[in-house]
Parts: sequence; C-alpha cells; structure tokens
Amino acid sequence: MQISHIEHVGIAVTSLEEAIPFYENLLGFKCFAIEEVADQHVKTAFFRVGQTKIELLEATSPESAIAKFIEKNGGRGGIQHIAFAVEDGVANALAEVQEKGGRVIDQAPRRGAEGLNIAFLHPKTTAGTLVELCENPNK
Amino acid sequence: MQISHIEHVGIAVTSLEEAIPFYENLLGFKCFAIEEVADQHVKTAFFRVGQTKIELLEATSPESAIAKFIEKNGGRGGIQHIAFAVEDGVANALAEVQEKGGRVIDQAPRRGAEGLNIAFLHPKTTAGTLVELCENPNK
Repeated sequence: MQISHIEHVGIAVTSLEEAIPFYENLLGFKCFAIEEVADQHVKTAFFRVGQTKIELLEATSPESAIAKFIEKNGGRGGIQHIAFAVEDGVANALAEVQEKGGRVIDQAPRRGAEGLNIAFLHPKTTAGTLVELCENPNK
Repeated sequence: MQISHIEHVGIAVTSLEEAIPFYENLLGFKCFAIEEVADQHVKTAFFRVGQTKIELLEATSPESAIAKFIEKNGGRGGIQHIAFAVEDGVANALAEVQEKGGRVIDQAPRRGAEGLNIAFLHPKTTAGTLVELCENPNK
C-alpha cells in the first residue's frame, strides 16, 4: 500500500464546545467544519495543521465508539485513532493487510466524515493502536 | 504561537520489537532511527510519514510515563501524545499559553529525542490530550 501522509489524528473529547477554544485560542488553529456522522454516533470538528488535520470527536450516543473510549479512559478524552491517506485505494490496502496475515475491522471501505472512503484495521494487528486508512474518492 | 505542522505522533507500545514490523511490513514505512532517551526512561523508534513522524515509545523502567500510560490502558499500547512544531520558539509558546490562562507541565523547554527542544502542556488545558510543543534548535 502507498501511504502519502497522515490524513488526520482523531481525538475524543467530552465536549466540542469546551475543546474547540483550546485549539483556536491557544494553538491558533481555525475550526473549518463541524459535521455529525450519524451512523458513527459522533459530532466532529476539523482543524487543518500543515498536511494533516485534527478531528475532534464528541459522542452523540452512549453506543458510540467515542463514548466507550472515554469511559475506558476514566471519563477523560484522549487521542483515539490515527488515519493514513492511502494513494492506491482503501480496498486494495485492506486486501494487502489480510494477505499478509493482518486483521481488519472493516472488510470493505465505508463512508466517513468529509465524504472519505475509510476503513479501520484491528488493534490486534497494529500493536494496540486504532489505525484508519482513508482515501478521497473525488481525487 | 505559530504552529507549522504536526512534528510527530507519539505511540506507546509494549514492545518495539513487536510493533516495528506492523509499521514496516504492513504500512510500508521505514524505521530510520532507534534512540534511548535515558531521562524519560524510554526507547523510541521513528518513521517518517509525509511532513510528520511516528514515534513509537517503549518504557525502559516502570517509572516511565509510557509504563504508566500502558498500565492505565489495561496493559495495551495506544496513542499517547501529539507534538506540534512551533516556528517562533517553545519558550515563547509556553509564555503565551500561561498568559492566556493555560497550564503547562514544563515551565521551560528541555531536550527531547532527536535533539529537539520540547515542552508538554497540561492535559487540564488541552481537553484531556497530552500535547507537546517542539522546535529544532539547529533550524
């Protein structure tokens, strides 16, 4: 698989409203999009930092992976996942990972925030880190 | 403060030896440096990804922040911190954060891996995320 850069870093927060001012007022970033991803039960806020983005994630339901992450983390937010931009397709990348004996969470790409095609690898394969692969279908 | 990009993402692992093959064989990155940072009680491995780096961190002592992170995380690794490259100096950035009412872990920059000047902000200020600021003193 051809990875060009880190597409975004996904950070779980208990409240977007409380977290956004840190990124804007202290770090000097500008939130350029707030989007609800209904099937993931999250509300997201995006900031651009060089080649990469920060994606803040607030749970909109207790069944959200973000709610579970925060619960496991003693009620605190933290960095939940890292997403790599693949140049030769997420479907190809998933096939390659499995051919090499790795495990995936998503068998096929699905639609994520910002209209990207995304898929997650299984933490058993990634030494414990939640890794997302993504591609821009309009590119 | 002027942040240009994400300098690196710090990922705690229980074993560099077990984690490096995922990044090399599955994601296709190349580990370009392994370094022990004695005063942090960690051994690190670095991979370049576009503008950014991945820093894997293995604890070399139970008193390491990485050992404590893994213990809190149920014995598993995970993403421990995010480091931003500041263009106008870490000392300036620390002063600015404190002027604006934010809390810092390091009152002054100290030496980190790869010879960078680094400092950490306090998670109380950052909505729960461990945020590092860094600059290359030779740039």
